[in-house]
Amino acid sequence: MFKRILIANRGEIAVRIIRACMEMNIECVAIYSTADKESLHVKLATKSICIGPARAADSYLNMDAIITAAQVTGCDALHPGFGFLSENSDFVRKCQEAGITFIGPTADAMDALGNKATARKMMMKAGVPVVPGSDGPVEDFKKLEKIAKKIGYPVLIKASAGGGGRGMRRVYHPEDLKKLYEEAKAETRACFNDDEMYVEKLILNPRHIEFQILADEHGNVIHLGERDCSIQRKNQKLIEESPCMYINDDLRKSMGKAAVTAAKAAGYTNAGTVEFVLDEKDHYYFIEMNTRIQVEHGVTEAVTGIDLIKQQIRIAFHEPLKIKQKDVKLNGHAMECRINAEDPAKGFMANTGKITFLNVPGGPGVRVDTLLYNGYETSPFYDSMMAKIIVHAPTRLEAIRRMRRALLELVTEGITTNGDFDYLLLHHPDFVKGNYNVSFIENHADEILSWDKAVSDIDE
Amino acid sequence: MFKRILIANRGEIAVRIIRACMEMNIECVAIYSTADKESLHVKLATKSICIGPARAADSYLNMDAIITAAQVTGCDALHPGFGFLSENSDFVRKCQEAGITFIGPTADAMDALGNKATARKMMMKAGVPVVPGSDGPVEDFKKLEKIAKKIGYPVLIKASAGGGGRGMRRVYHPEDLKKLYEEAKAETRACFNDDEMYVEKLILNPRHIEFQILADEHGNVIHLGERDCSIQRKNQKLIEESPCMYINDDLRKSMGKAAVTAAKAAGYTNAGTVEFVLDEKDHYYFIEMNTRIQVEHGVTEAVTGIDLIKQQIRIAFHEPLKIKQKDVKLNGHAMECRINAEDPAKGFMANTGKITFLNVPGGPGVRVDTLLYNGYETSPFYDSMMAKIIVHAPTRLEAIRRMRRALLELVTEGITTNGDFDYLLLHHPDFVKGNYNVSFIENHADEILSWDKAVSDIDE
Repeated sequence: MFKRILIANRGEIAVRIIRACMEMNIECVAIYSTADKESLHVKLATKSICIGPARAADSYLNMDAIITAAQVTGCDALHPGFGFLSENSDFVRKCQEAGITFIGPTADAMDALGNKATARKMMMKAGVPVVPGSDGPVEDFKKLEKIAKKIGYPVLIKASAGGGGRGMRRVYHPEDLKKLYEEAKAETRACFNDDEMYVEKLILNPRHIEFQILADEHGNVIHLGERDCSIQRKNQKLIEESPCMYINDDLRKSMGKAAVTAAKAAGYTNAGTVEFVLDEKDHYYFIEMNTRIQVEHGVTEAVTGIDLIKQQIRIAFHEPLKIKQKDVKLNGHAMECRINAEDPAKGFMANTGKITFLNVPGGPGVRVDTLLYNGYETSPFYDSMMAKIIVHAPTRLEAIRRMRRALLELVTEGITTNGDFDYLLLHHPDFVKGNYNVSFIENHADEILSWDKAVSDIDE
Repeated sequence: MFKRILIANRGEIAVRIIRACMEMNIECVAIYSTADKESLHVKLATKSICIGPARAADSYLNMDAIITAAQVTGCDALHPGFGFLSENSDFVRKCQEAGITFIGPTADAMDALGNKATARKMMMKAGVPVVPGSDGPVEDFKKLEKIAKKIGYPVLIKASAGGGGRGMRRVYHPEDLKKLYEEAKAETRACFNDDEMYVEKLILNPRHIEFQILADEHGNVIHLGERDCSIQRKNQKLIEESPCMYINDDLRKSMGKAAVTAAKAAGYTNAGTVEFVLDEKDHYYFIEMNTRIQVEHGVTEAVTGIDLIKQQIRIAFHEPLKIKQKDVKLNGHAMECRINAEDPAKGFMANTGKITFLNVPGGPGVRVDTLLYNGYETSPFYDSMMAKIIVHAPTRLEAIRRMRRALLELVTEGITTNGDFDYLLLHHPDFVKGNYNVSFIENHADEILSWDKAVSDIDE
């Protein structure tokens, strides 16, 4: 097994990876920016090394500094976490050149899946359903206009290099196409230094369903069931759950098979996620594959009992998967709330502060992954996600009730989070019934925000 | 369902019961002594009521004050937790007279099982194996001497009313019998105001194995597998695990059946625990039945996925058990460490203090039940147990490693706990191999205490 792993990340995902390493008796080296000197991941790692100033571009995105850190500390492998360099194939190649195992897919698979237009073509060839649209990037506006007319409005303009909603625009009327196309193009150029665009049919009110994949280097590919990640605000997931209550065994089998086919088509190895939209008639369409561990991996860990970070490490060490598809069972129901330092009453504005009192929820079926500790001063330089609360219970209703009580136990004095908002959301009759799609927050945020916090009679 | 439950306890078990109530949408009323005004269970309950001064005899053992508290707050049921009045049949009767459902067995079942000599007779009649010994209490020393000679030394003198090791003496040589008999008799008289004694064969180096029972009011009795609680210090359990690695399916079936028979023989209802000793030749003997929820119930919850407190409440509400014996599966491996405010370097002396910094372990497979929070001042009036860490993993070795890393994450500045001692214990080759019995701590505590904390090469 690896002797020492460099954790090329920060925050709760760095803590998560350290925990896996410790449980595997692998030493781990934390990296940190000057702003993160007092961070939890630094305190928990076997060893830590400063790799630059606060700005991510100068530290957590500084490939050479990170690879040097791995070399001087004698690491034989590197885990990228999510975000930062986790989906950067140049970084994967640099690791390889430096003789350090990158815990994730190959650079080639990352490249193929990272470009959405290429990925789309690949999936069509493999027989994985994709949303009707352009068969690759569209060269110019004229071509775009023609395809949009052919597939019919509304359409979705997307950047090949996009992510997190950037470079993406919904177009409901032909007359808006030009303006929105140019906006999206400018945005993706600014964000990703790449303005290749494509277009597809906009699926109205879909659910966002994703399948967790594990693929080893010996040709074994399995899926670990789905996560319903439809509760999103501005394309950022807020609450995720597994299983999706609207997916029956037949549909799960069909989508799971498509997810495995997608991973195989890309020659994918390690953990990954195949994302689909599911429309109201149970038609599903591949949208993209995320070539890394995801924030919401914990809900899959809860229902399957499989530790995904440990599996990632074992796969990167060339071990064959020991789990067969038939052994994967979704046991009970799991749900995750992302706790962000965002104030719902102020338009979800991010805030920072020093944690003067922290109470972490506990008890049966509650898992908390957090970067917070008492006295910690949160940083304005990075993501606002402060914690993930993951609950597991025999049924969905019990999971909802468990999450509610966990949210009531959570106290983070010093910062304002979306915890109370989530608590109210978990009482919304449509959420409780499972009657929601990706537009839920957009349609209901104001209603939820208007509720008195003391309301207790909104229940199933 | 019950509308409002009074929680007749304090500390982490009160918190545990509040969590179950909240998840069942049942209001809960906390009681507290003046010393416990700032306790976590008070903060988490729907409502709370002071029932007397710090001394337990004046508050948590004050039956009338507690029943009055339940009445004035409109509670229709009462959960006793463990310790305090949880095994007091007079209290059960008083609750009944006051029209408040006691969440636990009937007073009669409690009486029958509470007297060890009576319980022993009952089990013999039902065909449950008991340790060879006196068929009930022994009237005087002469009789005792005769029986001891017959069953052969070593023997164990026990008090009918005993518990927690009180009124119990091991006798290896006939010449010590009289002295130890008188000591034990005096002790049980002082502790329990009852000096009825009996004697049995001392099983050398046994494992302490207990079976969790659930019994409803409709005649359904099931067991939820075993817990190995052999890691004890002065008859106080320190580490518990499930399953026991030395019990195979056949033995589990046989012991489980005996446990169910024992519960049925006593007309037992609600959750209970049948305790056995298991000798080195796989012979098992009933020792007693605990007529309450136990500290270590969480390890059974982890491996079975069944919430025992919720089951207790449902059973008390006359609901039939929905779980059948065949549906009970022990999934993976669970382990609990009790974190006590005791200093191992000072002979495990109890200590108290104000918590100036708390870090609670988190991440996958880790559950923490604690009464601690940042700034809390622990009380000298009550039990020294501050927290329970329960881990769950696919295998025993993974559970051990998970517990080690959880213990490393635990920080409780302001008090000294046995956490570091447990961490070292979890590296002892005999523990890792599962090669232990009730004498483990007695035999190895000094060795473990002599280890440098930084030792890292003691491993499986």
